[in-house]
Amino acid sequence: MATKIVELEKPKLNNPVFIEGLPGVGNVGRIAAGYLAEELKAKKFAELFSSHFMPFVLLHQSSAVHVLKNEFYYYKAKSKKERDMIILIGDSQSVDPEGHYEIVDKILEFVSKFGCKEMFTLAGLSVGDQIKTPKVIGAVSDPELIKKYGKIGIDFDAGARVGTIVGASGLLLGLGRYYSIKGVCLLGETVGFPIIPDPKSAEEILKVIVKVVGTKINLNKLEKKVKEMEEFIKKVESVQRKSLEQLMRPPGEKPADQKEKLSYIG
Amino acid sequence: MATKIVELEKPKLNNPVFIEGLPGVGNVGRIAAGYLAEELKAKKFAELFSSHFMPFVLLHQSSAVHVLKNEFYYYKAKSKKERDMIILIGDSQSVDPEGHYEIVDKILEFVSKFGCKEMFTLAGLSVGDQIKTPKVIGAVSDPELIKKYGKIGIDFDAGARVGTIVGASGLLLGLGRYYSIKGVCLLGETVGFPIIPDPKSAEEILKVIVKVVGTKINLNKLEKKVKEMEEFIKKVESVQRKSLEQLMRPPGEKPADQKEKLSYIG
Amino acid sequence: MATKIVELEKPKLNNPVFIEGLPGVGNVGRIAAGYLAEELKAKKFAELFSSHFMPFVLLHQSSAVHVLKNEFYYYKAKSKKERDMIILIGDSQSVDPEGHYEIVDKILEFVSKFGCKEMFTLAGLSVGDQIKTPKVIGAVSDPELIKKYGKIGIDFDAGARVGTIVGASGLLLGLGRYYSIKGVCLLGETVGFPIIPDPKSAEEILKVIVKVVGTKINLNKLEKKVKEMEEFIKKVESVQRKSLEQLMRPPGEKPADQKEKLSYIG
Amino acid sequence: MATKIVELEKPKLNNPVFIEGLPGVGNVGRIAAGYLAEELKAKKFAELFSSHFMPFVLLHQSSAVHVLKNEFYYYKAKSKKERDMIILIGDSQSVDPEGHYEIVDKILEFVSKFGCKEMFTLAGLSVGDQIKTPKVIGAVSDPELIKKYGKIGIDFDAGARVGTIVGASGLLLGLGRYYSIKGVCLLGETVGFPIIPDPKSAEEILKVIVKVVGTKINLNKLEKKVKEMEEFIKKVESVQRKSLEQLMRPPGEKPADQKEKLSYIG
Repeated sequence: MATKIVELEKPKLNNPVFIEGLPGVGNVGRIAAGYLAEELKAKKFAELFSSHFMPFVLLHQSSAVHVLKNEFYYYKAKSKKERDMIILIGDSQSVDPEGHYEIVDKILEFVSKFGCKEMFTLAGLSVGDQIKTPKVIGAVSDPELIKKYGKIGIDFDAGARVGTIVGASGLLLGLGRYYSIKGVCLLGETVGFPIIPDPKSAEEILKVIVKVVGTKINLNKLEKKVKEMEEFIKKVESVQRKSLEQLMRPPGEKPADQKEKLSYIG
Repeated sequence: MATKIVELEKPKLNNPVFIEGLPGVGNVGRIAAGYLAEELKAKKFAELFSSHFMPFVLLHQSSAVHVLKNEFYYYKAKSKKERDMIILIGDSQSVDPEGHYEIVDKILEFVSKFGCKEMFTLAGLSVGDQIKTPKVIGAVSDPELIKKYGKIGIDFDAGARVGTIVGASGLLLGLGRYYSIKGVCLLGETVGFPIIPDPKSAEEILKVIVKVVGTKINLNKLEKKVKEMEEFIKKVESVQRKSLEQLMRPPGEKPADQKEKLSYIG
Repeated sequence: MATKIVELEKPKLNNPVFIEGLPGVGNVGRIAAGYLAEELKAKKFAELFSSHFMPFVLLHQSSAVHVLKNEFYYYKAKSKKERDMIILIGDSQSVDPEGHYEIVDKILEFVSKFGCKEMFTLAGLSVGDQIKTPKVIGAVSDPELIKKYGKIGIDFDAGARVGTIVGASGLLLGLGRYYSIKGVCLLGETVGFPIIPDPKSAEEILKVIVKVVGTKINLNKLEKKVKEMEEFIKKVESVQRKSLEQLMRPPGEKPADQKEKLSYIG
Repeated sequence: MATKIVELEKPKLNNPVFIEGLPGVGNVGRIAAGYLAEELKAKKFAELFSSHFMPFVLLHQSSAVHVLKNEFYYYKAKSKKERDMIILIGDSQSVDPEGHYEIVDKILEFVSKFGCKEMFTLAGLSVGDQIKTPKVIGAVSDPELIKKYGKIGIDFDAGARVGTIVGASGLLLGLGRYYSIKGVCLLGETVGFPIIPDPKSAEEILKVIVKVVGTKINLNKLEKKVKEMEEFIKKVESVQRKSLEQLMRPPGEKPADQKEKLSYIG
């Protein structure tokens, strides 16, 4: 099956900027993009699902099932100051190395159909320590973007320190040029444990993004929203981790905590 | 090769309900769906095979080979009280994570061609203890199904306790909406060792299913049938487990019981 | 790339019987089919290569490279007593579980184009002990073949003892019916160490095969030929084993014998 | 997504010889081909990227991202003594066994479109010891090439000692005949630690290559260039190794050096 995108609506967009925030280090990108989509009341218009996500559904309290997916939202500019946007959020990235390329390629092909020429990918950068005011570090697909976005609070001097960007946020930039989409990756500094969401770091990223897209959003509700939002993300992560551990444990060896055992295949 | 469905007949069905019961926890779903197909004398009309099943054939006593497959049966309603059905049973689910999505997608695409709009997926829920009267717990792809099927003995209040549904029974519900098929997953409580089949739990599920499809079936022969049915399913499971152990054992390390060694590639 | 078949010639064949002998337990099938092709001066007409084989080439003494492949030969009957044949031999089977299905499906699709309706797959059956006169055990895709071939020295009563047939010899029979090809698997009893070739067991299989195809071949040169043939097969196996061990060894851990280290990627 | 080649220009070439130098043992091939392309001011005309490379981007000092890729360069002969060339260099080979076949097949299909009939693949041969004057050992896809290129400093008598060639340099030769491209693999003797680049061995290979293509290049700058070139290649290798180690480490087990931890998914 590989990876499929199901379109719910075909919006007409004017030179939209693409903003990606999928789960990752500190969930910084996921929090920032999710908050942005919610505050702007952006509208969902497509869903992506993939055989590179874990093969299970999660149950909500209500007993309704939730299949892992990525979701595309759009926002149409309300004044000349603003820009049209496509925002991508989701439950999961690929759980195997090959899937990242496939999913990122599908995403780029899809957003390019809407005339997208520029993107911002949002991610966390693990620094190992708690930081009072996290910096927003930038990486670019094209040096001219450093000039263009050099004065809105992005640190473009940390390339050597960062070294690599693993997963969708990096590959989107790397493969974007094959679709004529230039991009900036915004990396919010964070402690780096994936399980602890970092709203502080997400907030710093949002302060940059609003300058890019010319939109004002209220950042006051961020911490509260993060708590709601994270409940579900943490659940996905926890099940995913247990599944992976089970798949990688040599047969015959018992899990560390027998009670935590995931019953494989319902 | 991926996954192929071979059609043996093209039945015309009237708004059929799709019922899935593949191997899983306590083989509850497999037993219930298999018994239903047999009691109704449902007719096989398609077979699915996949490179995500283990690459071997089993030998019957007669020296005839049996290749792992899933089988589609249909049943045409004999009165206005009954509903047409497509019943899916089989020897195996995908043995790797990616295969689940591919197989489930193929199944949904296939049954949607017959006008299927509703499905029931049958599975077991591991509870760790022997239970005298196992409950049938429900999960839904759409909350309105809780209203529709709230009064036929399904417990729709256990979502939080269940948490996740791994494999086909869950993914069919999760991906079903992309094919406009709504679904209920019926989870029969069971001890949870996959090797011990649980006819009691399957019976409770069948009591629910007959109300859904308006058909009467005799449940007296269930335990006897289970014994016949399980002989083969246990054999598949046992060989599959040994194969997986062998594939995952570090080279050079000997299997726990040398005599149990599976001779890889005949 | 998956799996490709390159045709060198398009022979016209009359109801050919397909005979498969790829590497496996005791290399019984490979030896028998290879000897048959050589004695009959059968002509190569197609080659199969696959990304499911190990990614290396072997070097002959002459410094010419040898890429792993499977080879199709044909033989045209010289009298009414004989039957046309397609013989498949090769260096390797799939090294991952998924590849077996894909390769077998390609093979069946290919030979069915030549009007093939019947096949014999040749393999070894590991029995753990040296046996003076190895039996030839049969498995069938269709019980009527037991009647048809019941009187030419095949033991059709050992199904329960065999249990499973892993790899191409089994799957060809299992998937053959989707291409309307019926088949018998001939399993020659052998000790079961894959590295020790067993010409005795191969000879017993050849005695059966000549009765099936109505051809006479001289079996005297078998042991001598086996020695020549096996040199190369053992080399493939040895490199394959080392490669797999290296791929599965946790990084950082040294191989048992440092000198045996395979330099991965030339 | 698998593997894609993006064409930047469509050069018209006259019977070009294809020269491949991807990372491998001692990076001998990569160094030789990279130096050749640079000295000849060959022009890049296509890029290959693949889901079989590691799913990350590297950051340059400038904060510009670098996606892993292979690059095709062409060189047009400036006199009748010279030959047109296609030179392939790159950051990575496939990190999984299956990818090698797919990538090599794509490369062969691509270069055959430009009328390529002959190729030289450049690689290192691990010999375990420092060698003062490394030999250049040859392997061929066709014995007639031994005659054709027997007198330009290639040792064609070491086939048995080499045994196998793993990865692109070997498979290109092995699969080349399906595209009517004959080839020689030049293996420069080297110590064999992949992390230590070996300009000495690369130099010996270049001395052979210039005779093949009839071009003169200045070899004096080789050691200096190698130092520049290798900085980046070593970085890719180091990240790749850490990623692989992390993917293969049993969950729960800590990496040898906690500080070296690669933060998976930014």
